[in-house]
Amino acid sequence: MTALEYLARQKDRVNGFLDNYLLPDTVKPEIIHKAIRYSVFSGGKRFRATLCIAACETFGGSVDEALPVAGGIELIHTYSLIHDDLPCMDDDDLRRGKPTLHKAYGENIAVLAGDALNALAFDLVSRADDCRLIRILADAIGTEGMIGGQVADVMSCGLDEITEDTVRFIHTRKTAALISASIAMGALTGGATEEEMNVARRFGAGIGLAFQIVDDILDIVSSDEVLGKDVGSDEDMDKATYPKAIGLDASKVKARELVAEACGYLDTLEHDTAILKGLAEFVIERVY
Amino acid sequence: MTALEYLARQKDRVNGFLDNYLLPDTVKPEIIHKAIRYSVFSGGKRFRATLCIAACETFGGSVDEALPVAGGIELIHTYSLIHDDLPCMDDDDLRRGKPTLHKAYGENIAVLAGDALNALAFDLVSRADDCRLIRILADAIGTEGMIGGQVADVMSCGLDEITEDTVRFIHTRKTAALISASIAMGALTGGATEEEMNVARRFGAGIGLAFQIVDDILDIVSSDEVLGKDVGSDEDMDKATYPKAIGLDASKVKARELVAEACGYLDTLEHDTAILKGLAEFVIERVY
Repeated sequence: MTALEYLARQKDRVNGFLDNYLLPDTVKPEIIHKAIRYSVFSGGKRFRATLCIAACETFGGSVDEALPVAGGIELIHTYSLIHDDLPCMDDDDLRRGKPTLHKAYGENIAVLAGDALNALAFDLVSRADDCRLIRILADAIGTEGMIGGQVADVMSCGLDEITEDTVRFIHTRKTAALISASIAMGALTGGATEEEMNVARRFGAGIGLAFQIVDDILDIVSSDEVLGKDVGSDEDMDKATYPKAIGLDASKVKARELVAEACGYLDTLEHDTAILKGLAEFVIERVY
Repeated sequence: MTALEYLARQKDRVNGFLDNYLLPDTVKPEIIHKAIRYSVFSGGKRFRATLCIAACETFGGSVDEALPVAGGIELIHTYSLIHDDLPCMDDDDLRRGKPTLHKAYGENIAVLAGDALNALAFDLVSRADDCRLIRILADAIGTEGMIGGQVADVMSCGLDEITEDTVRFIHTRKTAALISASIAMGALTGGATEEEMNVARRFGAGIGLAFQIVDDILDIVSSDEVLGKDVGSDEDMDKATYPKAIGLDASKVKARELVAEACGYLDTLEHDTAILKGLAEFVIERVY
């Protein structure tokens, strides 16, 4: 099975799992359940969930064991997108080809839907009955992780000079932390040892950073239609991006190097890592 | 020890614990750690944390066992206040006698500080190493709990007719769910049985609803100075409140009845419940 086929298969499973888990939009107050479903089922790739499932399988666990954890991670990702799009943040109108949640349901419902998804994610992850997973997730999305990166991102808008250090600080937290945690949580669920967990984390950190660099690149070279969101918004917001810090071509090289290095770590494992490597390749294939 | 003395003692312990737990505001990005500390240490009563600790002690646990759980609950409470105060929600300028977080640090930082506190709370609760606690908390603050109540609250503004059913729907979720969970989580940490947990929850649901009714009453009869927030804001927002649904005097009677009934449940327990009863009395003593 190719990585793309694997991704498509897990996407269906994750969507089915979340559809079953999330309350129907007939439960009161209906609007919040409608809003949550609007955002959760808006066509995301489920890349983080797939990484989690792949890591779990790599270390000997099953897809079913990974699903609650993988589903929780996707809910966190969805909440972060909803809040990032808010008028007081990136003020985006378009996400995955549809109006952003605050455009469709109002700003108050968007804030509350994100808040609810944040909590629901921990509920899902708790079903694996391992509090270490809760701590890995909380770390990854706290002030030294995703939120810290988002804060630094917001504060960096309009800065005259963006160094590679600044943008690496932002990207490792804003994006790589959750991607790395997805893999670490999958690995732990699959029974990875401490040492294997460290390898999983290093792999995740590398492809996570590459993922955000590619996002920066796509924001320049892609089109609204392909991307389903406002292209060029980074430049409009005067954001700290890799292309701004080191140039477009050097950014492409950097993303490739990071993925190659990340895959190198996997070679130290005594497991079949073909799917993880394939998913790592997908990170950069998105560009070209 | 009176309930007020107990409350004062636990408040100090919870504050000390959280001061030690939260990152110093010298950690990058500094602004988010400053913002979090600004809101967490703004003089809250720590009533929910104290209920959690009291419930833990009631069933034979120690204060130290309860502290991470109690601290986590206070972080949830703080996040909910920050987001409730946002311009797109209640649009409040004053909280506990100080400018609200978005007034002091900007709307984007306020959203992100609330998001971070949401995650940090689960990190803290996970330290008790019991995933059932995670699920109780997530349930209490999800779309059938706190967020559901907040959504219904937002949607009810400006309605012509407010029935007691509507306002009970809102209050049991917006406020009582987290208060009830605080007691249930403390009870579980202290080793309560299933049956004892049910009693704890019923007690919590009663005093939780009473707590919000008293809040509604105080918003009418108190002053900005005493309350430290904008008095009369419920009426300004045309909110669904108990006084609006059944009148001021009937609301006072209702709160008293709820607390008496809640304390009655405790009499079925074979434990010393004096402190819990004292804390229940505190809920209504605030009014008069």
